[in-house]
Amino acid sequence: MHWSPDDQEGVVIAINGQFPGPTIRARAGDTLHLHLTNKLHTEGVVIHWHGIRQIGTPWADGTASISQCAINPGEAFVYRFKVDRAGTYFYHGHYGMQRSAGLYGSLIVDVGEGEKEKFEYDGELSILLSDWWHKGSREQEVDLSSKPMRWIGEPQTLLINGRGQFNCSLAAHFSNSTVAPCKLSGNEQYAPYILKVHPNKTYRLRIASSTALASLNLAIGNHKMRVVEADGNYVKPFTADNIDVYSGDSYSVLFRTDQSPSHNYWLSATVRGREPHTPPALAILNYLPTSPSHLPTSPPPTSPRWDDYPSSKAFSHQILSLPGSPTPPKTPHRRLILLNTQTYINGYTKWSINNISLTLPTTPYLGSIKYNITNAFDAKSPPDRAPPGYNVMRPAPNPNSTYGSGVYVLEFNSTVDVVLQNANALKDNVSEIHPWHLHGHDFWVVGYGEGEFKEGDAAGFNLRDPPYRNTAVIFPYGWTAVRFVADNPGVWAFHCHIEPHLHLGMGVVFAEGVERVRGIPNEAIACGLTGKMLMRNGTR
Amino acid sequence: MHWSPDDQEGVVIAINGQFPGPTIRARAGDTLHLHLTNKLHTEGVVIHWHGIRQIGTPWADGTASISQCAINPGEAFVYRFKVDRAGTYFYHGHYGMQRSAGLYGSLIVDVGEGEKEKFEYDGELSILLSDWWHKGSREQEVDLSSKPMRWIGEPQTLLINGRGQFNCSLAAHFSNSTVAPCKLSGNEQYAPYILKVHPNKTYRLRIASSTALASLNLAIGNHKMRVVEADGNYVKPFTADNIDVYSGDSYSVLFRTDQSPSHNYWLSATVRGREPHTPPALAILNYLPTSPSHLPTSPPPTSPRWDDYPSSKAFSHQILSLPGSPTPPKTPHRRLILLNTQTYINGYTKWSINNISLTLPTTPYLGSIKYNITNAFDAKSPPDRAPPGYNVMRPAPNPNSTYGSGVYVLEFNSTVDVVLQNANALKDNVSEIHPWHLHGHDFWVVGYGEGEFKEGDAAGFNLRDPPYRNTAVIFPYGWTAVRFVADNPGVWAFHCHIEPHLHLGMGVVFAEGVERVRGIPNEAIACGLTGKMLMRNGTR
Repeated sequence: MHWSPDDQEGVVIAINGQFPGPTIRARAGDTLHLHLTNKLHTEGVVIHWHGIRQIGTPWADGTASISQCAINPGEAFVYRFKVDRAGTYFYHGHYGMQRSAGLYGSLIVDVGEGEKEKFEYDGELSILLSDWWHKGSREQEVDLSSKPMRWIGEPQTLLINGRGQFNCSLAAHFSNSTVAPCKLSGNEQYAPYILKVHPNKTYRLRIASSTALASLNLAIGNHKMRVVEADGNYVKPFTADNIDVYSGDSYSVLFRTDQSPSHNYWLSATVRGREPHTPPALAILNYLPTSPSHLPTSPPPTSPRWDDYPSSKAFSHQILSLPGSPTPPKTPHRRLILLNTQTYINGYTKWSINNISLTLPTTPYLGSIKYNITNAFDAKSPPDRAPPGYNVMRPAPNPNSTYGSGVYVLEFNSTVDVVLQNANALKDNVSEIHPWHLHGHDFWVVGYGEGEFKEGDAAGFNLRDPPYRNTAVIFPYGWTAVRFVADNPGVWAFHCHIEPHLHLGMGVVFAEGVERVRGIPNEAIACGLTGKMLMRNGTR
Repeated sequence: MHWSPDDQEGVVIAINGQFPGPTIRARAGDTLHLHLTNKLHTEGVVIHWHGIRQIGTPWADGTASISQCAINPGEAFVYRFKVDRAGTYFYHGHYGMQRSAGLYGSLIVDVGEGEKEKFEYDGELSILLSDWWHKGSREQEVDLSSKPMRWIGEPQTLLINGRGQFNCSLAAHFSNSTVAPCKLSGNEQYAPYILKVHPNKTYRLRIASSTALASLNLAIGNHKMRVVEADGNYVKPFTADNIDVYSGDSYSVLFRTDQSPSHNYWLSATVRGREPHTPPALAILNYLPTSPSHLPTSPPPTSPRWDDYPSSKAFSHQILSLPGSPTPPKTPHRRLILLNTQTYINGYTKWSINNISLTLPTTPYLGSIKYNITNAFDAKSPPDRAPPGYNVMRPAPNPNSTYGSGVYVLEFNSTVDVVLQNANALKDNVSEIHPWHLHGHDFWVVGYGEGEFKEGDAAGFNLRDPPYRNTAVIFPYGWTAVRFVADNPGVWAFHCHIEPHLHLGMGVVFAEGVERVRGIPNEAIACGLTGKMLMRNGTR
């Protein structure tokens, strides 16, 4: 539908007439029944429930070509799954570039009836961060798939709960910029989001990022934040002036409304890790009974410079699990080293992992693996590591890679280490941030390092209090190691959460215990070769 | 892919890297095997073979929701059908607004080996006409489906074989317009199409129109045309300075290259029936050995004024079948009177037929009717005529209509008359041209009239030499009567060929002899309720 995420009208994929989609709220232990009817004219659709592990329901993970067939126009699909753990989650499209088109919303799971969180607060607020382009996602797909590739560029606008400003600025009078001050009634679709608070209370602010590209830094003017949750898991609380939020991350922070109640304050999100061409997103922390139309009297909070990686690394390293949290098995059964490189295939720019650029098959893996359909995807698994001798600090001497749809088959219940190895991109002196997101599991982030990962580095892994998460970032020219237990029967994507990077092949697929999966609904796999099989054989 | 149909780059749906799609050429009696693989990222696709009757292969008609399920991304479908009759045809998308997005191409069927056409010529040329908007078709769909509706407006550019000019004009020096002359090397994607001819020869020019909206008038400067074929059928030859070509029409004309061979000449197409905001499309008739870069020295040919309906009607009335052509049965078994009105449904603007705005079901009719699936579409057939007393000359006192997916079930082998009754649209003093196209059949155009059709008008029907066609136009405030024999088992769309009008509900569905259909491929109906049936029952 038409919508104005910023002051320029565009078209969004909306849910029930809303952008972002409605917030889904449940209690831990609930089983959700989410009825999706696809009302798009010609496009299929799926929705991924980001951070929900889908234990026992791998067909409800909402990943086209992996867990299910896209739901065709006019068709319906019921996502039925248990939210087993309280936390801050979100949902989003996982087909083509539909997340960029605005298909996302918040999913919040409260503690079960009679349970208590491990921290206290008086009130709760929630924001979903995203980024927005004026060019439609279909054109973006064509741009990315062109030879030479046309990069989508930086977003025009950052959004907080779907709201941002492009041609005007709320904070124009604090800057020398030529952008005009916004003249807003407050009823505009792009009017800033207002977080209403009472003075002298402790608030829990839930934060999630569904950005297609932007890594963000979030700050609240004049207020410190205490980080207590990351990706649905408790963390050892620590205080920060500002926090980094990568695409795929979620956090809860506590803050105290201890400032003068006769003013309002900024909540701002700025771009990290890429030279920003996008102004900060601004929301208003509104101290009641002050009118929300009173703009803050001080300038928006300052964030670290976009390329202040030491500050980002310090923030990431500070995130540790709360004592009493699950700890990782002491030794892995298998270690994958996934080299992330920007490559070419026949002149098309791609992202590749161990020199393979992921191309998703037509038949969802979950069905083709469960039913032993052999020609649905590449039979050969991708390599466990890149050939030795690759210099991660320099552009590749031969940047050509190949397409692949093979999967890593993980032994059920085995412990797997994955070292995500960053490298120089195609251009000299460029290495980017990539937030990697794992479906169906949390992993422990056991280590970060600079340059090339060496076997000896594993000795330094943090096995005592590593954070338990579903998204972990790799920093430029560095590596990040995660450990998880392959205990969830299903087929699971593990990929860079930057949507255009995934579109260009930056992901891998894990399969584990698929033979144990029972009850895949026909409608989840009624396409491709599994569809043919079902038609041949009748009901299973 | 990126393409510049005019001098502004856009995105088109292309086939094998070509826009328009490749010309398909066959001989009468051939069976074509057309392998379609859908390489779009998230959209389904179908292709309709416009003018091919699909006798015995109704599942190959390429109409989403009617003859087949849309072919999903990554999937393939083979269109296998016989081209039983020589003629000038074309093909195009028939799902959402994919025709507007550029999914079309020419389909030419030559006479069978050893056969001869009923007219002679030395050489052949072919043009496919279309119209082009700078706004993408997805945005157009959203615009049309909004409340209030946002009309797509007139096209930015008219295209001849996919080529037009927007910011510049080939004929700038002949007009007072402020548009700059084009500076072209000839290699541009939007350089004009060149029709190369030798002097003193007779050429057959094949013409088809795949426009989304525009009715066109075509002329060749300094050359008269002799019309010999319409929609794959011979017509009584007649000579014209210019010809009207409505969306869905195809013609062959003969012309003699009897002009000075030291000049080139214009072929131009201008808008009919809507106040034009689009400059004429121009192609170059290039007399060899003159260089094609020598622009014609005289101004483009003049066309009738856009609202010169008497001239359009005179042209349509002139089209009669060649003696020896099939003639219609003398009396119909059933007469449908289809009142075309512009209406509202809950504030959404629609087009309706007998007060019902067609909404296509998720399950293709061909499958649901063949397999007696009762809840796939409205069980009730739409009415055979509108309630009496409707004043076609005035806006409706109550312009509300309802959605409907019912079909007209035609007795197999019966003769059916359809009177297409035009009316005033929502606004005072507006009544538009609508070219109606019938799938699966040709019809005889037995009469045209002004105002409201009266029973007595049938006495004046031309049953002697009515043209046999698949597309017929209704003029403002008038009616057009067609007769056909329901002798082709299948389910067939009959609709206004203006794509946004069809999108807004301007069509009906005919079903005949579906119980006789044998051999529907599973992959044509592997969606919706027929998909569920196939999975339940296994192969049929």
